[in-house]
Amino acid sequence: MPYSYEYPRAALTVDCVVFGFDEGDLKVLLIQRGLQPFAGRWALPGGFVRVEESLEDAARRELTEETGLKDVFLEQLYTFGAPDRDPRERVVSVAYYALVSLAEHQPQAATDARQAAWFSVDEAPDLAFDHEDILATALARLRGKVRYEPIGFELLPARFTLGQLQHLYEVVLEERLDKRNFRKKILGMGLLVDTGDIQQDVAHRAARLYRFDERKDQQLKKRGFSFWL
Amino acid sequence: MPYSYEYPRAALTVDCVVFGFDEGDLKVLLIQRGLQPFAGRWALPGGFVRVEESLEDAARRELTEETGLKDVFLEQLYTFGAPDRDPRERVVSVAYYALVSLAEHQPQAATDARQAAWFSVDEAPDLAFDHEDILATALARLRGKVRYEPIGFELLPARFTLGQLQHLYEVVLEERLDKRNFRKKILGMGLLVDTGDIQQDVAHRAARLYRFDERKDQQLKKRGFSFWL
Repeated sequence: MPYSYEYPRAALTVDCVVFGFDEGDLKVLLIQRGLQPFAGRWALPGGFVRVEESLEDAARRELTEETGLKDVFLEQLYTFGAPDRDPRERVVSVAYYALVSLAEHQPQAATDARQAAWFSVDEAPDLAFDHEDILATALARLRGKVRYEPIGFELLPARFTLGQLQHLYEVVLEERLDKRNFRKKILGMGLLVDTGDIQQDVAHRAARLYRFDERKDQQLKKRGFSFWL
Repeated sequence: MPYSYEYPRAALTVDCVVFGFDEGDLKVLLIQRGLQPFAGRWALPGGFVRVEESLEDAARRELTEETGLKDVFLEQLYTFGAPDRDPRERVVSVAYYALVSLAEHQPQAATDARQAAWFSVDEAPDLAFDHEDILATALARLRGKVRYEPIGFELLPARFTLGQLQHLYEVVLEERLDKRNFRKKILGMGLLVDTGDIQQDVAHRAARLYRFDERKDQQLKKRGFSFWL
């Protein structure tokens, strides 16, 4: 069958906002562009969608090609389609986002990216295209989600202290949380399992280590968290 | 500047899931397709994005062309890009959804739609393309949102009873809610204003009429609802 739509077409890209968390800092993975437009400028990893691949496959392929990252959990964020967002021509971009454990994902630049690196979200450089809008949308999504339900465990090590978890939420929400209240609420949700171990080799008093109970989380999600009803 | 991307391109469409609420029933606005593929089949209103228009403009234009609906509040839902979702060729579709007051939006078919009509969500016919997936995604989004915060006032008349509001949530969530608990919680949020009036011309005991306080809602959204923290 011939093409169904005989008029000029937008090009289609994917872009990935990958968040990491390290020493109390929320970070985003950026690449330095090698090609025009915006050569030398930092940008979100991404690129053109091939006509035969799914959008998520394209996002995974570009992420691996440009940063070396594999097997991350990607979620679709939003599609950016302002007619003037790319100086070359009409390009519509489907944005994805991911939360990863920074320690386990050391990026390596490849293909058309000069380099790949983690930047503190607060100190990210000027980005190419409308990538600052995309990053802001991803941050807003992350903040909204954290308010609704405890998420973001992918950003922490497999075993973590309640202090680390609280600090993560404080950084994401940009506000201080009451320690006692936080502990009561997070433990009351029953999503954390006490590993029975405590921190090793710390100068301060060693804290209990918890892990996230994925099975319990699935159960709660299936039933549907109900926050006000 | 020449085209930046010299390979085959997907075509780009928009599709709209418009929900309405009527006599206790959640409804979706569908059109009957006049053209191949799926001629005669019911589908979501939508169509191809012009290369010079924004995605949301395209969604509004198609919605008006195919159903006569104007000035509705559209929100982007998700982008559907499975390589085989359209039998003609690769077509990626950006889906939007809207909540409208059914009484104020009587659809009228136009252009390439044979007719437009409201269907009960539970009794919707087989839909063209992957439009059943898109509808299911929109329903899941609506259910998720209702659990997080009181929304959906667009689906009700400007003045409504607490019974109507509770019934709306029960239909969306497909579960019964406790009347006393519901009233306590919804009034406790401070989002409703007692109009001082009661229902007219009802057989049963006339109930109080409320309206939604949009300004208060904006304030709460700005501060950020916090449900568990």
